[in-house]
Amino acid sequence: MQLDTSRVDIGTSRPLVLLNTVDADELGAHPLDRVRIEHDQSVTTGIVKRTDQLVAQGVLGVTEPLHHITGSVTVQLASTPGSVRYIRQKLDDVELESHHFETIVSDIHEHRLSDVELSAYVSAIYTNGLSLEETKHLTEAMTGVGQRLRWDAPVVADKHSIGGVGGDCVTPIIVSIATTAGLTMPKTSSRAVTSPAGTADVMDVLCDVEFSIAEIEAIVSETNGCLVWGGGVDLSPADDEIIRAENPLSIDPPGQLIASVLSKKRSAGSTHVIIDIPHGEGAKVESLVTARELADDFKRVGAYLDMNVSCAITHGTDPVGRGIGPVLEARDVLRVLEGGGPEPLRLKSVQLASMLLKHCDVDASATEILNSGRALEKFRDIIAAQNGDPAIESDDLEPGSAQTTVEAARDGIVVRVDNRQLCDLARRAGAPKDTRAGIVVHQRATNSVQKGDPLYTIHAETATKLDEAETVSGQLEPIRVRSKADALVEQR
Amino acid sequence: MQLDTSRVDIGTSRPLVLLNTVDADELGAHPLDRVRIEHDQSVTTGIVKRTDQLVAQGVLGVTEPLHHITGSVTVQLASTPGSVRYIRQKLDDVELESHHFETIVSDIHEHRLSDVELSAYVSAIYTNGLSLEETKHLTEAMTGVGQRLRWDAPVVADKHSIGGVGGDCVTPIIVSIATTAGLTMPKTSSRAVTSPAGTADVMDVLCDVEFSIAEIEAIVSETNGCLVWGGGVDLSPADDEIIRAENPLSIDPPGQLIASVLSKKRSAGSTHVIIDIPHGEGAKVESLVTARELADDFKRVGAYLDMNVSCAITHGTDPVGRGIGPVLEARDVLRVLEGGGPEPLRLKSVQLASMLLKHCDVDASATEILNSGRALEKFRDIIAAQNGDPAIESDDLEPGSAQTTVEAARDGIVVRVDNRQLCDLARRAGAPKDTRAGIVVHQRATNSVQKGDPLYTIHAETATKLDEAETVSGQLEPIRVRSKADALVEQR
Repeated sequence: MQLDTSRVDIGTSRPLVLLNTVDADELGAHPLDRVRIEHDQSVTTGIVKRTDQLVAQGVLGVTEPLHHITGSVTVQLASTPGSVRYIRQKLDDVELESHHFETIVSDIHEHRLSDVELSAYVSAIYTNGLSLEETKHLTEAMTGVGQRLRWDAPVVADKHSIGGVGGDCVTPIIVSIATTAGLTMPKTSSRAVTSPAGTADVMDVLCDVEFSIAEIEAIVSETNGCLVWGGGVDLSPADDEIIRAENPLSIDPPGQLIASVLSKKRSAGSTHVIIDIPHGEGAKVESLVTARELADDFKRVGAYLDMNVSCAITHGTDPVGRGIGPVLEARDVLRVLEGGGPEPLRLKSVQLASMLLKHCDVDASATEILNSGRALEKFRDIIAAQNGDPAIESDDLEPGSAQTTVEAARDGIVVRVDNRQLCDLARRAGAPKDTRAGIVVHQRATNSVQKGDPLYTIHAETATKLDEAETVSGQLEPIRVRSKADALVEQR
Repeated sequence: MQLDTSRVDIGTSRPLVLLNTVDADELGAHPLDRVRIEHDQSVTTGIVKRTDQLVAQGVLGVTEPLHHITGSVTVQLASTPGSVRYIRQKLDDVELESHHFETIVSDIHEHRLSDVELSAYVSAIYTNGLSLEETKHLTEAMTGVGQRLRWDAPVVADKHSIGGVGGDCVTPIIVSIATTAGLTMPKTSSRAVTSPAGTADVMDVLCDVEFSIAEIEAIVSETNGCLVWGGGVDLSPADDEIIRAENPLSIDPPGQLIASVLSKKRSAGSTHVIIDIPHGEGAKVESLVTARELADDFKRVGAYLDMNVSCAITHGTDPVGRGIGPVLEARDVLRVLEGGGPEPLRLKSVQLASMLLKHCDVDASATEILNSGRALEKFRDIIAAQNGDPAIESDDLEPGSAQTTVEAARDGIVVRVDNRQLCDLARRAGAPKDTRAGIVVHQRATNSVQKGDPLYTIHAETATKLDEAETVSGQLEPIRVRSKADALVEQR
């Protein structure tokens, strides 16, 4: 069928084409079918949307990703991409092979799958799981479509947390310690997706985080490390698409998680990696047994890809630092480097840094490097290399001035500090968009409190946001205080 | 957040709203998140699409289903609908209960789910299956959201094929026989979705098929039966949405199939139903064992809903009639009623009609009714009641004049008549949109043929469509002829 193209903007990243219902019927094209578009001696595939009104008969509406197609084109029904068959096989619980994953990842990367197909992929992986072999193939396939960083150093250290814990900003401290000890550690981090602050959001408070590959290389050659945003360098581009389908369903299948993390690490050129797996009620992984299985799989897939992977199974029930939100977490980080700061954040950072040094066969003491102030000095060097102010101190960082403190309503014992509810509250207050918004946690589980003692403070940048967060705060109970009599038993 | 609404057309049936990226970040809204829109003292939920260009900051773009929302509105982040949690549970292979299915079906019916969520539902049902209890609950929930037809007759007969076979238009013949025998049989049928002709498409050749409920009642009170399009009466509206996700994945999970079919039968007021389950290579159900299991489940769910369901397991490997496509199938139907026609179509119709009469406790002979010409007379009455020409004869029906006949390339035996390839070819020739397009099959499996004998004829309405079908025909081999020596063994 011969059609004239017309540009249409519908805010999509998928290669959708709009067909008038009459033309679509003529072609026999249903919604989400593919058409083959011949134009200027080249051929492109489009995904069909039918419409009565948006385009007239005889016109092919081309959306944003296909705006390069102009003029008169020949359109015919095309077959569905090969990956759809493989996705169906995975729904049938058939073990997929290397070339299947290559096709699937390439179709995902090129935006060739509709939302229905992408979701079926994620659902299949989630419900039927991935074998170790499949996870290896998927990781390789995902590495294959990303950019690669290359380093001269024989050992390139890295650290990754599977996430889900508030105020868990140990990375800047670990990078500062490890690079002081002489390790090369070009750290790329993510921004928050569903959390109140990613490491990149926290660093963004102190310096720039978006750099080209050449700029990153310059920073690393100067300081041995960096703390930049990974999204700027496209290490595993298929991952963003997959996350787009995982988020609305709130699922994060373990095999996919391993492939997403390790494909990025491999593309980043890392040779020695520590994976932090927080576990416990409210964390991504609830049971210790599952955490250990995940750790073993991480190590096996790592070995297959010639990476030395070690895992740290940590406590993920309550927040690590006191602050949750970009500015509040940056303040905690600086305080630890300055010699103080929240004890759990300090402890966890030192332990993971020690583990990383040992893992990379470096004979140095993380505690000594931190206590001597050399880690702080190194951190300031990195901030300077990333165009920030190296003289910054923790006291310079002011959280949002609209604030309210929630107090204990009775004498008793703190039976639970609910990480998830606190993160939710921090987002309601405006984090990560409003960098100075967030929560300061004043209590830890098992503390004894008296009526009127502060439990947590909400900070926001505006009164409206504070109001919103306060309303939600009234519906939740992120820090639960019970009288001694009720502390151990909840009667229902 | 206060926003001004602006109407946007993007050809969607989902309640999407477009947010400028800046506003979306401010709200913390990701793609496919929900927002709560307060307007004119009422509240509506929208699904978020983020855009840099389509709407400016401060503006909420409302798409077609939300065009009733105008003026200034208050927008805030909303929680995901309850059904998403239940879908995730089904992905976890948790058995769902009655109220879960009610929520899911109601959210599907109200277009409240995004494509990602709808696909996860279909994927979960497909991969983890539905228990008998779950299928019952789902069927009840799907019936609950549809319109209901009510009839005075104590016995209301119905017949349904799960489909997938070409030229299988037995329904008009069965309805004519059953209503002649005194049964009430208000038959609603579908149009083709992925096949070359649905029963409604075939009847559309002979008379009108789209009627209101009142009109259908008038037709049935006059003739005891009807042969109308079911889409006009909305008996199970959630089904169309579910099919929208099933089609691109080419999956049709058994529990969902049973619920879709029986919810429609129940809404149509049927009391006695025959389900035709074609099986064999290339049919929807390949093995006899699976067909029998499906039949048993159909009967059990039917009994639960107080319907008398019987199943006919039939051969679904090759086409039943000779013609495939609306006009060609209408011609076969008339020929059988006139006393001739393709033998397998005649036989299958009589056997299913006999089964239905017995099932409804009617003492009459289907063969006698057909042979006496009374079924033809009744069929003409129905055509007249549906505004068609009752004098029509099979010879009045002319297939498309652009035609080509494919001949045997060698002497030998017909080892396979491939139903799927023939249907594909009929669609390429233009069916069902071009009603006179389609295929006439000249051979059946095990026939002996000589080089040059006709195998099948392609009919199209235009030379262009014929060309297209011929090209595809050259790539396929819908009727396979092998020399006697190779007939039983394919060497690879």
